[in-house]
Amino acid sequence: MSTGYAAGVSTPPLTRAEQKERTRRAILDAALDLCEETPLAALSLRQVAKAVGIVPTAFYRHFASIDDLGLALVEESLATLRALLRDVRRGDARTYSAIIDSSVEVLVDHVRRQRRHFAFIARERMAGPPGVRDAIATGIGLFERELASDLSALPGTEDWAEDDLHLLSDLIVSAMVTTAERLVDTASRSPEEAGVTATARAQLRMTLVGAAHWHHR
Amino acid sequence: MSTGYAAGVSTPPLTRAEQKERTRRAILDAALDLCEETPLAALSLRQVAKAVGIVPTAFYRHFASIDDLGLALVEESLATLRALLRDVRRGDARTYSAIIDSSVEVLVDHVRRQRRHFAFIARERMAGPPGVRDAIATGIGLFERELASDLSALPGTEDWAEDDLHLLSDLIVSAMVTTAERLVDTASRSPEEAGVTATARAQLRMTLVGAAHWHHR
Repeated sequence: MSTGYAAGVSTPPLTRAEQKERTRRAILDAALDLCEETPLAALSLRQVAKAVGIVPTAFYRHFASIDDLGLALVEESLATLRALLRDVRRGDARTYSAIIDSSVEVLVDHVRRQRRHFAFIARERMAGPPGVRDAIATGIGLFERELASDLSALPGTEDWAEDDLHLLSDLIVSAMVTTAERLVDTASRSPEEAGVTATARAQLRMTLVGAAHWHHR
Repeated sequence: MSTGYAAGVSTPPLTRAEQKERTRRAILDAALDLCEETPLAALSLRQVAKAVGIVPTAFYRHFASIDDLGLALVEESLATLRALLRDVRRGDARTYSAIIDSSVEVLVDHVRRQRRHFAFIARERMAGPPGVRDAIATGIGLFERELASDLSALPGTEDWAEDDLHLLSDLIVSAMVTTAERLVDTASRSPEEAGVTATARAQLRMTLVGAAHWHHR
């Protein structure tokens, strides 16, 4: 048998689906880069297409509009983080302190990995186009509801009123949003990052202490 | 004596200083309006001048640049609110609950009066030009430090560590920022506004209960 054909060395050609996914990814990445300078609302489809190296009409094979592209960025920023935080709460950690520490660790790690995504969310949350602002608010609302639901299953909240659970989970999620905004502006493994992380942990503990005593009043 | 000269009825001509102040105000107001559609970073001096009805070069008699105009908007948004909140804490209210209620009332009232200003702050806080973002962060930092200082003078915090005072005041100021952001998006005297206000009050109480018990651990 001839050895001239080195199987596994040559790269097999991409399937049409793989090529499409690769271009979609390139569009999302180009938008994240461009948005560091230009707000999404001011971004043109032409700019994105040029950065990716495709003709403007090819953009529409992937997204219906720039806003639609923005919604995809919101979704991929928040969905994974939400699943990771849920896993922490439904995992092995048995004390509130352990859950807080693991949640903050997951948040720091995730924002560090997806810094451009969270810088995008931080900027567009209040300043973006209405559809994108709504999607971010809806995504954050989902964090809040899932957390309230998980809190109701943790020991110590058996006889809590629904309203109090939401009051607490909203307070926690707001503190996480503030923490993520601060992390976006700090370098990985810097003293500032350590400070932001320590503050978040202590403040979440303080909040839960408040909730515990609040409930018993 | 002739009564043909009706003193006090005719409007005396504006002094040069009054005319200058009036134009400065018109520039600030035009920028607030234009920024509802256009981020400050994308706003041109020409646009602002046109909206006010002055020639572009006349703009420079009032502000060195668009960023400089942005800094003036930040200052007038935050300075008065900071003084009002300080007055609440140094006033007649003797319990933490009364201070919380009055502070939230001042915040709601002030954001309602200066909705365009606080919408501007909410958008530019994370998405604005670096100088404006820094000025907003510095302004919010001042709220935090003044609050920590006032908390140290209130009964019950005599033996608190400096770090714990800042942990608590940062948590309170973050909750106020979140509340202001929510108020910007709700109509005056609407059920939504009442909900945002009630949530803020309850969450600040919960936070202070936490701080009280946190300290004693």
